[in-house]
Amino acid sequence: MAKIFLLSSLPILSVLFLFLFLFPLSYSQALPINVWPKPTTISWPIPRATPLSPSFQILSAYSQEPHLQSAVARYTRLLFSEHHHPIVAPAVNLSSSPPLRSLTLSISDLSSPLQHGVDESYSLSISSSTGLANLAAITVWGAMRGLETFSQLSWGDPPVIAADVYVADRPIFPHRGVMLDTSRNYYPVEDIMRTIEAMGANKLNVFHWHITDSHSFPLLLPSEPDLAEKGSYGPDMRYTPEDVKAIVEFGMSRGVRVLPEIDAPGHTGSWAGAYPEIVTCANMFWLPNGLSNWAERLASEPGTGQLNPLKPKTYQVVRRVIHDVASLFPEPFYHAGGDEIIPGCWKADPGIQTFLANGGTLSQLLEVFLNSTHPYIASLNRTTVYWEDVLLDPLVKVEPSTIPPETTVLQTWNNGPNNTKLIVSAGYRTIVSSSDFYYLDCGHGDFVGNDSSYDQIGSDRGGDGGSWCGPFKTWQRVYDYDITYGLSEDEAKLVLGGEVALWSEQADPTVLDSRMWPRASAMAETLWSGNRDQRGKKRYAEATDRLNDWRHRMVGRGIRAEPIQPLWCRTHPGMCDVVR
Amino acid sequence: MAKIFLLSSLPILSVLFLFLFLFPLSYSQALPINVWPKPTTISWPIPRATPLSPSFQILSAYSQEPHLQSAVARYTRLLFSEHHHPIVAPAVNLSSSPPLRSLTLSISDLSSPLQHGVDESYSLSISSSTGLANLAAITVWGAMRGLETFSQLSWGDPPVIAADVYVADRPIFPHRGVMLDTSRNYYPVEDIMRTIEAMGANKLNVFHWHITDSHSFPLLLPSEPDLAEKGSYGPDMRYTPEDVKAIVEFGMSRGVRVLPEIDAPGHTGSWAGAYPEIVTCANMFWLPNGLSNWAERLASEPGTGQLNPLKPKTYQVVRRVIHDVASLFPEPFYHAGGDEIIPGCWKADPGIQTFLANGGTLSQLLEVFLNSTHPYIASLNRTTVYWEDVLLDPLVKVEPSTIPPETTVLQTWNNGPNNTKLIVSAGYRTIVSSSDFYYLDCGHGDFVGNDSSYDQIGSDRGGDGGSWCGPFKTWQRVYDYDITYGLSEDEAKLVLGGEVALWSEQADPTVLDSRMWPRASAMAETLWSGNRDQRGKKRYAEATDRLNDWRHRMVGRGIRAEPIQPLWCRTHPGMCDVVR
Repeated sequence: MAKIFLLSSLPILSVLFLFLFLFPLSYSQALPINVWPKPTTISWPIPRATPLSPSFQILSAYSQEPHLQSAVARYTRLLFSEHHHPIVAPAVNLSSSPPLRSLTLSISDLSSPLQHGVDESYSLSISSSTGLANLAAITVWGAMRGLETFSQLSWGDPPVIAADVYVADRPIFPHRGVMLDTSRNYYPVEDIMRTIEAMGANKLNVFHWHITDSHSFPLLLPSEPDLAEKGSYGPDMRYTPEDVKAIVEFGMSRGVRVLPEIDAPGHTGSWAGAYPEIVTCANMFWLPNGLSNWAERLASEPGTGQLNPLKPKTYQVVRRVIHDVASLFPEPFYHAGGDEIIPGCWKADPGIQTFLANGGTLSQLLEVFLNSTHPYIASLNRTTVYWEDVLLDPLVKVEPSTIPPETTVLQTWNNGPNNTKLIVSAGYRTIVSSSDFYYLDCGHGDFVGNDSSYDQIGSDRGGDGGSWCGPFKTWQRVYDYDITYGLSEDEAKLVLGGEVALWSEQADPTVLDSRMWPRASAMAETLWSGNRDQRGKKRYAEATDRLNDWRHRMVGRGIRAEPIQPLWCRTHPGMCDVVR
Repeated sequence: MAKIFLLSSLPILSVLFLFLFLFPLSYSQALPINVWPKPTTISWPIPRATPLSPSFQILSAYSQEPHLQSAVARYTRLLFSEHHHPIVAPAVNLSSSPPLRSLTLSISDLSSPLQHGVDESYSLSISSSTGLANLAAITVWGAMRGLETFSQLSWGDPPVIAADVYVADRPIFPHRGVMLDTSRNYYPVEDIMRTIEAMGANKLNVFHWHITDSHSFPLLLPSEPDLAEKGSYGPDMRYTPEDVKAIVEFGMSRGVRVLPEIDAPGHTGSWAGAYPEIVTCANMFWLPNGLSNWAERLASEPGTGQLNPLKPKTYQVVRRVIHDVASLFPEPFYHAGGDEIIPGCWKADPGIQTFLANGGTLSQLLEVFLNSTHPYIASLNRTTVYWEDVLLDPLVKVEPSTIPPETTVLQTWNNGPNNTKLIVSAGYRTIVSSSDFYYLDCGHGDFVGNDSSYDQIGSDRGGDGGSWCGPFKTWQRVYDYDITYGLSEDEAKLVLGGEVALWSEQADPTVLDSRMWPRASAMAETLWSGNRDQRGKKRYAEATDRLNDWRHRMVGRGIRAEPIQPLWCRTHPGMCDVVR
């Protein structure tokens, strides 16, 4: 098997073509054991397995790279401790060759940092005749993807692994993320780490951490400790700088970037604990004139509070916050929020009333804020991510000149593919987290209190259950979405990727895993290798059994992913389909 | 405080009136610490607490009653180990009296078994001046309700308890249940026990165990072991007779009846592993002619299988099953299923085809089945519960004479209050588990495979997400439902109570707690003390904070109940309301 030894010295694509030439394509068939997300190319012509030798080792010559070393140690442990028991026993023969002795890593560029666009490709071969496996990647982060693939090709107790299998793999989209809101309800560090662990297993690479909001400010910042001390839910519900460091390191060892969001100038009611003078409408009732006067609301939901762009003190605080966050998070993207500026909240402030009476506009107020913060973020070598609202909100938005495309990424959440199109056609890069497809919290009703509309026997909030973004986004809905739908080829290049989002009005650690998984896995595959088969047909049908298997495996790994079907469906292939 | 000592010697109602006379009513006010479900009457005129003495004891003179003894031991442990930390610290002063030394139980009728209609009333007084508390109840089961109330009046570390509080309490409805389907996905015994534990804490009293269905037959029966051996998901996914005994005992110690359901003649595909000859249409594709020919389906969902009423062997097997189940479960109600007989499945059988060709009807087939099983169940001193279908199905139903109201209870699930009305007006007792209000699995999309309707960018399965009973039933929706809506006073007397139901197509242990709680708690209060305040107004607004608190307490007790609001809402009373 001389080609195995060639692997690390050949460019990955050449190796890929070599494999495609030497072996029949089998990646459209159901394999006895599968990897999620499905690799771009996997060839396993003869379904055969080989035992892992008890002395099996992952051989890495890169001990100077601590995150890789950590991953190697972790996967070595996992291979011998997981004892994965597939729902349907893989129909494979055990190879008569000696057990697999090692997996050797070959990495050509050790120095590429974990950041947007880093190369994540890898190729993997497992040879039973030699008892050796090889994993070649350009970067450390690609190697981590390959280690995960290797782990998913293994099962049983004692462990065996797919033999004579060849994988050449790389993602379609560079940004594949999960957003978690830790303000409305708090999540302990261990829950965040478990989420990042599961992300790595799904080859997701961006943990977008919506840290703060009007409800709580859990992040303890060295220069602004009062924000958390007076704005968090309590001393036991704060993230210390040490916590952040541990989370960032944890992500690095799994190839997951930790992208912080400090939402501003809206969604900042919690800042008023420390600085009431810079927050408008804080602690006011959110809907002073009732549902029928929605335009007069002070916030899009309880609770209220927006930073006041006219107060110089605002920028003293915001800049210290930005500075500290940029120090704590090495990630080159900084998410600055910018969503849902509610006119009524700013209008509650006398100074702003004067500004508006003198001919100023709400959009000018937002421009003042962004002009005073965006260049500062850029000066720290950060690309600023904003929610789409700064460009697309019908009432409060800024001129494009305020947010140069070179230093700005816009994250879309409204109006499905239409807003994606508006953003990229304006020349901006975008991250897609459409609430119609990717909001994982939707479909669980409304959380507001004393709502008499639930007390109607004949209908359930008009039939939709009261969730503003209902219905619940099924895994199929997530899986089938094409985030570049309706875009030209050039426009599509501006789509960096997507994020599923878990807002936490009705979520906390009790439901974190089941709300997130396996629906985030559905997006993970679509953004990694696509949602279509070789013929270009959506492959949701074929994906169902694989997702059942992967969900089962995640549960075994301690991720409480929700079931998508009766177990019977997996053991009776095709019998739960709607079309025979 | 001489009246305390009178308590156990006075009839409960007299004690109640005495308290109402001596103390101002305060049960419509928000109390510093609350009990869920809210007691019928609670008086706590001066918000004061007293420490539990380190030597505090629950004094019971009834050591001959093992289930009560078990409860006493459990609550004693809980009182000293829970260390409940309320979200909002109770605004109470600590009494200057000595700590509480004991809670004395007084039970007038030790022999009443745990069965439908058993007296669950209790009264409880906690006196700081004497350092003594008293709990009086007619039955052991009422005493257990009082012990739970006592535990919920306690908090802190070291524990304190509400002092000089008086509770007189009893349920509105005698049947307050939870249904769990353990066939579509399997739940280990510990999950069932945790559910029953939480039920007891919510004063729910019937665990309706939908044990078997077409997907699996997990119940190992002494006379029919093959049903589980060939019909369960595997050796590690079966309930042995010892498991059942342990679950029944566990329920007894918490005042929770365990009501078994063996669904038949429909929903029996799993029986075909052992007895293919008595099951029609087993292992056939459920929708042979597609969604557009829904009337020709073989089952309401995958998978298929119905017992054949024309085969004598059917009754040999069914009677042995009934016999064994009646032996394993002391519960006097036996749920025999009877729902969703699908014509196409029976019509797939040649013998039935002949029967129909000779002028027989589908309804006659069902009558044959019920006439051959209902009297046998009755002969074992069991009341048979059926799903409403046996009376109300438009195509396959029986004459009322087949199911005498004296030995029959019908459980309603379709068409909201309309079917409840149809059932009671026909003279039947009913249990309400309307899918419009009480089905906890709804709103999570459809589980069937290869469904192209999810692949439409413009709509999500026509906007409802594909769940047949969507949207998701919010806690408000559950709480507000009046199960006797539209009934006359006499008709309402036939409503035994209600059950929330968790069907398990998309549920298993990973989501059990969060799907069930706190929504089952919402029903628990409505069926225990109602959903209205003293003025007859729905009290969902006032209930919100209390449910937040109770959910928080359940999580502390190891029940992973889902959050209903941001924590901020509980710490900012009224601020998350929709109407000020």
